[in-house]
Amino acid sequence: MQTHIELITPIITEGLRTLEDVRPFERADLRITHCLLENGPASIESEFDEALCVPDTIRRAIEAEQRGASAIIIDCMGDPGLAACREVVAVPVVGPAQTAMHVASMLGHRFAFITVLQRLRAVIGKLVAGYGLNDTYGAFRAVDIPVLDIEKDPAALQSALARESILAVREDGVDAVVLGCTGFLGCAGVMRQSLLEAGYDVPVIDPIPLAVQLADALVKTGLSHSKLAYPLPGSKKIRGYTLPEFNARG
Amino acid sequence: MQTHIELITPIITEGLRTLEDVRPFERADLRITHCLLENGPASIESEFDEALCVPDTIRRAIEAEQRGASAIIIDCMGDPGLAACREVVAVPVVGPAQTAMHVASMLGHRFAFITVLQRLRAVIGKLVAGYGLNDTYGAFRAVDIPVLDIEKDPAALQSALARESILAVREDGVDAVVLGCTGFLGCAGVMRQSLLEAGYDVPVIDPIPLAVQLADALVKTGLSHSKLAYPLPGSKKIRGYTLPEFNARG
Amino acid sequence: MQTHIELITPIITEGLRTLEDVRPFERADLRITHCLLENGPASIESEFDEALCVPDTIRRAIEAEQRGASAIIIDCMGDPGLAACREVVAVPVVGPAQTAMHVASMLGHRFAFITVLQRLRAVIGKLVAGYGLNDTYGAFRAVDIPVLDIEKDPAALQSALARESILAVREDGVDAVVLGCTGFLGCAGVMRQSLLEAGYDVPVIDPIPLAVQLADALVKTGLSHSKLAYPLPGSKKIRGYTLPEFNARG
Amino acid sequence: MQTHIELITPIITEGLRTLEDVRPFERADLRITHCLLENGPASIESEFDEALCVPDTIRRAIEAEQRGASAIIIDCMGDPGLAACREVVAVPVVGPAQTAMHVASMLGHRFAFITVLQRLRAVIGKLVAGYGLNDTYGAFRAVDIPVLDIEKDPAALQSALARESILAVREDGVDAVVLGCTGFLGCAGVMRQSLLEAGYDVPVIDPIPLAVQLADALVKTGLSHSKLAYPLPGSKKIRGYTLPEFNARG
Amino acid sequence: MQTHIELITPIITEGLRTLEDVRPFERADLRITHCLLENGPASIESEFDEALCVPDTIRRAIEAEQRGASAIIIDCMGDPGLAACREVVAVPVVGPAQTAMHVASMLGHRFAFITVLQRLRAVIGKLVAGYGLNDTYGAFRAVDIPVLDIEKDPAALQSALARESILAVREDGVDAVVLGCTGFLGCAGVMRQSLLEAGYDVPVIDPIPLAVQLADALVKTGLSHSKLAYPLPGSKKIRGYTLPEFNARG
Amino acid sequence: MQTHIELITPIITEGLRTLEDVRPFERADLRITHCLLENGPASIESEFDEALCVPDTIRRAIEAEQRGASAIIIDCMGDPGLAACREVVAVPVVGPAQTAMHVASMLGHRFAFITVLQRLRAVIGKLVAGYGLNDTYGAFRAVDIPVLDIEKDPAALQSALARESILAVREDGVDAVVLGCTGFLGCAGVMRQSLLEAGYDVPVIDPIPLAVQLADALVKTGLSHSKLAYPLPGSKKIRGYTLPEFNARG
Repeated sequence: MQTHIELITPIITEGLRTLEDVRPFERADLRITHCLLENGPASIESEFDEALCVPDTIRRAIEAEQRGASAIIIDCMGDPGLAACREVVAVPVVGPAQTAMHVASMLGHRFAFITVLQRLRAVIGKLVAGYGLNDTYGAFRAVDIPVLDIEKDPAALQSALARESILAVREDGVDAVVLGCTGFLGCAGVMRQSLLEAGYDVPVIDPIPLAVQLADALVKTGLSHSKLAYPLPGSKKIRGYTLPEFNARG
Repeated sequence: MQTHIELITPIITEGLRTLEDVRPFERADLRITHCLLENGPASIESEFDEALCVPDTIRRAIEAEQRGASAIIIDCMGDPGLAACREVVAVPVVGPAQTAMHVASMLGHRFAFITVLQRLRAVIGKLVAGYGLNDTYGAFRAVDIPVLDIEKDPAALQSALARESILAVREDGVDAVVLGCTGFLGCAGVMRQSLLEAGYDVPVIDPIPLAVQLADALVKTGLSHSKLAYPLPGSKKIRGYTLPEFNARG
Repeated sequence: MQTHIELITPIITEGLRTLEDVRPFERADLRITHCLLENGPASIESEFDEALCVPDTIRRAIEAEQRGASAIIIDCMGDPGLAACREVVAVPVVGPAQTAMHVASMLGHRFAFITVLQRLRAVIGKLVAGYGLNDTYGAFRAVDIPVLDIEKDPAALQSALARESILAVREDGVDAVVLGCTGFLGCAGVMRQSLLEAGYDVPVIDPIPLAVQLADALVKTGLSHSKLAYPLPGSKKIRGYTLPEFNARG
Repeated sequence: MQTHIELITPIITEGLRTLEDVRPFERADLRITHCLLENGPASIESEFDEALCVPDTIRRAIEAEQRGASAIIIDCMGDPGLAACREVVAVPVVGPAQTAMHVASMLGHRFAFITVLQRLRAVIGKLVAGYGLNDTYGAFRAVDIPVLDIEKDPAALQSALARESILAVREDGVDAVVLGCTGFLGCAGVMRQSLLEAGYDVPVIDPIPLAVQLADALVKTGLSHSKLAYPLPGSKKIRGYTLPEFNARG
Repeated sequence: MQTHIELITPIITEGLRTLEDVRPFERADLRITHCLLENGPASIESEFDEALCVPDTIRRAIEAEQRGASAIIIDCMGDPGLAACREVVAVPVVGPAQTAMHVASMLGHRFAFITVLQRLRAVIGKLVAGYGLNDTYGAFRAVDIPVLDIEKDPAALQSALARESILAVREDGVDAVVLGCTGFLGCAGVMRQSLLEAGYDVPVIDPIPLAVQLADALVKTGLSHSKLAYPLPGSKKIRGYTLPEFNARG
Repeated sequence: MQTHIELITPIITEGLRTLEDVRPFERADLRITHCLLENGPASIESEFDEALCVPDTIRRAIEAEQRGASAIIIDCMGDPGLAACREVVAVPVVGPAQTAMHVASMLGHRFAFITVLQRLRAVIGKLVAGYGLNDTYGAFRAVDIPVLDIEKDPAALQSALARESILAVREDGVDAVVLGCTGFLGCAGVMRQSLLEAGYDVPVIDPIPLAVQLADALVKTGLSHSKLAYPLPGSKKIRGYTLPEFNARG
């Protein structure tokens, strides 16, 4: 049986994420489709941006399930709308941040979260606490490059990511690294190399490839999120949003 | 100087909350205004409902600050949009859940959160963790009455609230109670009386009156949320939402 | 109805705290009275000092309630005698440390406690744990100026407070600051200005003004500490202390 | 590229686990081989049993890597030897308990661990703490059936597992269930059905199928455990054990 | 070298504790002396009682060190004045609650604290948090017998202690028991027997004998409390208390 | 009654630990015997080394009890085999790491663990979590000297230990120090002196002398580990190990 993963990039900017990015993760038994939002922000760097992307992310999740997706990934390291989407669909909805942080906690003892901007420190702290991972969260660090500038100077980005990773190991005592922005896709290899050269053999988690594999793993084992934790919303009047009917596990 | 609090009830249903409800909390130096949403859900009982109320809650918060509000309260015990609203305004944005749970932690050793539906257990658990209150959160209990039915049978509601409060004290070992739905406004007195009759002299926190006082306290002491934790969102393209210009602390 | 707050400064030294200090917080509906101890230490900088101030603080609390105070504040950032005083009176007893640390946890993600002496690190650590705030306590720092020298060189004090605050943000990752000595009353404005100049827009909590407002908030909402957590002491023989009769909630 | 997983069942009893059990998880790109121990206990139900299985499990892990395995799974819910094996090999070593508990923490808010014997309560508590999962561990329950009796009365086993799962949801407030013995392989479906009939739609994690998928996910993403956390042991004299030469990442 | 332990019973009631009680713990190399307070309460069952016993406990501690005691034990399971006494003397000051709870955490996985009155639940919760033992504290239970009635009906006391211990094991999942009142001295044997008869082989810690041994252990290893955590109080004016000069490690 | 402690040094290297080392802790009522392993590693610096030492440590523990030992100490700061040994014997089995870390938590507020190699950071972190001591664990530091080189350059060792201790106090805020290798026996005095010269009066715990005293304290109070937490292993087939019959509390 083929797994069909819908990757929802919860922004409106075209070109930052394309199907080409995830094509390498496809296999005979694993197909990936992709969509952006119609309504929402150009990028996500704040709770405000997250708030504006969630309603259309929910719509995309319902549509994906109705079109037959067997799993859904929300392509942002804030996992925006993860809980809301899980309420409206029955197929697994995977957050790359949740996945990467839990797997990092399995591979090492303390992990670092290395992201774009210092301003996300409190946002990520709240996310970690909500996921129950306070005990394995070892460091927050940022390269101070906005999302929309990530592709402007790849060498500077890689260099900053390597620097912060090495500092996280040396000064904060972590032994695993999570790339804290899905826009960093593809940087893990170079970072890992830089860490090795500094004498540190630690895993660097690129969240989207891992989320793809975890989504597939859930599909193949017949698992999904708990509907007791994420029950179907009751039917009630809504104004301002046109959403498809949904009926999780109905 | 007069404090002006804007109470945003983040739903579209008219009549559940009116200015009459909060009029008793007004004073010569404290004025309260009130608004509903134009876009959003009829009530809030899920992460899905929360997600759909946040964008218009943000708009209401920006408008309130621009109209001169000195503080803003989000009238829902999920504190939906609290972080996003704090990013876009400089005046204090107060969440009744955060306020009630912290004050309960000051008045007793362990508190219970008693709300409408069992289905909110995971939602509240995540909220508590995000607020750093795992250590004082002693019990979650629900009366199993949906928000829109709260006013249908006040006696049944009061009886259920009293029963769950007493069980929370007796079986879960709490010594303070937080009313877990702002629709329970006004029930605290009867609950407290029932608890006293059962031999338990514990505070029962009605979150909206307390949030009003805390908002006033912040205004009078010149305090607001940290803009380092909740920085102003960067300017970027947004589609699907028409929001006023905002410029926190600008 | 007018709130009447009794501020108990739990030391014997005259002049460090006067009614003038809190006069600015009075309003038409909020009156503040003040007392020192007859027996106790000259200042509080140790568990030993705290221990010697508590018995007379308890006496002052009972007297305050009997004279009609509607709330009591213990004017020291160790909150000495908070639990014992809550046992003997029914009106709210407010600790400025507990209040400031909880409100800091509401306004930001992690707070710093900046106080007089390094020697208080363990004392404050135990206080934080007892209040259930391990998860939001981000930094302890001290200016190394004894309490009785606070007023000797205000410029040096302000400069040291600003330096430690900035370091707490920069090196410890906090986004809110609690003034860790009630003798720092009035320093918050300058500290906040220094932090802003360093690029950090974070709240600086001056505990006494906030405690006054919180006490008033509790009075106005009819809340007080849990008598299940702080029950009335049983009647028994006591030698060496002459205390008024007390009868909380009797 | 084909993933080759070696499943090490760390006991000496033949027949409890056979390749037939895991054959259904094989795919064109995923091959599974299996081995038992030569030296060790008949089953694992204590720290003592674990201790006696670890040396030969290490040997099996080294041999597996040398024979070309791309990942290793230790087939026991105590994850015996997980850390030691990770030190001696470079390919991912996956513990089904660690995997199941982390994935349960992703799919729900609090999970239950339901195992053979009450006597494992402290063992599992220590395991959970070591994995940093105190915050999401919601219940420990046991069916009181020893490992070697699991296959004697399947109906009684299934019934006991269902009963304890339902109690864990109802009384302990969990919303996800981990099967706490790899000998329960295949029971998840019936348990889930029983839970659904009781009105609880919660995931039931069968650890071995999930561990297989996670191992494959790690191989496909090029991830392995941190060699900073699990460094290669230094060369030194050992008596009583004949181990192959090993050279992790050498 | 002979260890000389001073046991300070921090109450004024004669006869509850006599030197006879601790005589059995004396050895050739271990001598115990005993004192009561001149000023303080008749018994300790509240934070109020604790507060009134601390000043004279401090005096007794200073006197004990000056008379050559090599260690001091505060004979109450609230450990009243532990921190303050540690500040004023250099010899080890041992709290039986701290000792018993830490040793219980070493001997089992989760411990129960079984004491006189339900009203102490919040007091003990705060004590546990301050000692950093939230993770191993498994149950609080009380027999509802006031301290001064402990000796009135020994059979009823023993029966209640046994009942609560068994319930703590059966319902709360603990595997070690701490006697939560030093007035329970001598009850551990019968409790342990009752637990064994119920099928539970768990340690029951009688805090005073253990504190005596731990104090001796500290003396024999040359250890004492950290003077960085408990530094000598500065010299300052004190009114209402006549204390001997003290000079820890001077 | 004389306490007889068996010290099991769980390695095969002769000469590192001799009875001479512990002779000074013997008394008229306290006798110590000592053994090495027949099978196991030359030293313990990894989870791998620990795994290989545990089976023979178990054998030594059973033999010790059968020869009449009243308590057993495992002479390694990883406490290898502590839980397994506790399952097979009834007399107290004491881990020096567990003992030292708990006593450090009693003597100060936060402790540092200072050991041989950085590579043990994750091992110790897991140990601390399993003991429930996350809240008082303040620092991990290493001198980067392998166990078998400890005696090569005592001056360099002492100097490195002093340096790391001082840094732990100054930079990590600890106020107590645990020597993290039993091979550091005898270094505590010099370290403490260096700390005092740096202005820090903190306890430095030498784990073996303390473990000896604690073991004696348990014997004298009739306490041992919980057999509910560490129950006797069931009888089952074992291959590859020849162990004496054991019958804890039988």
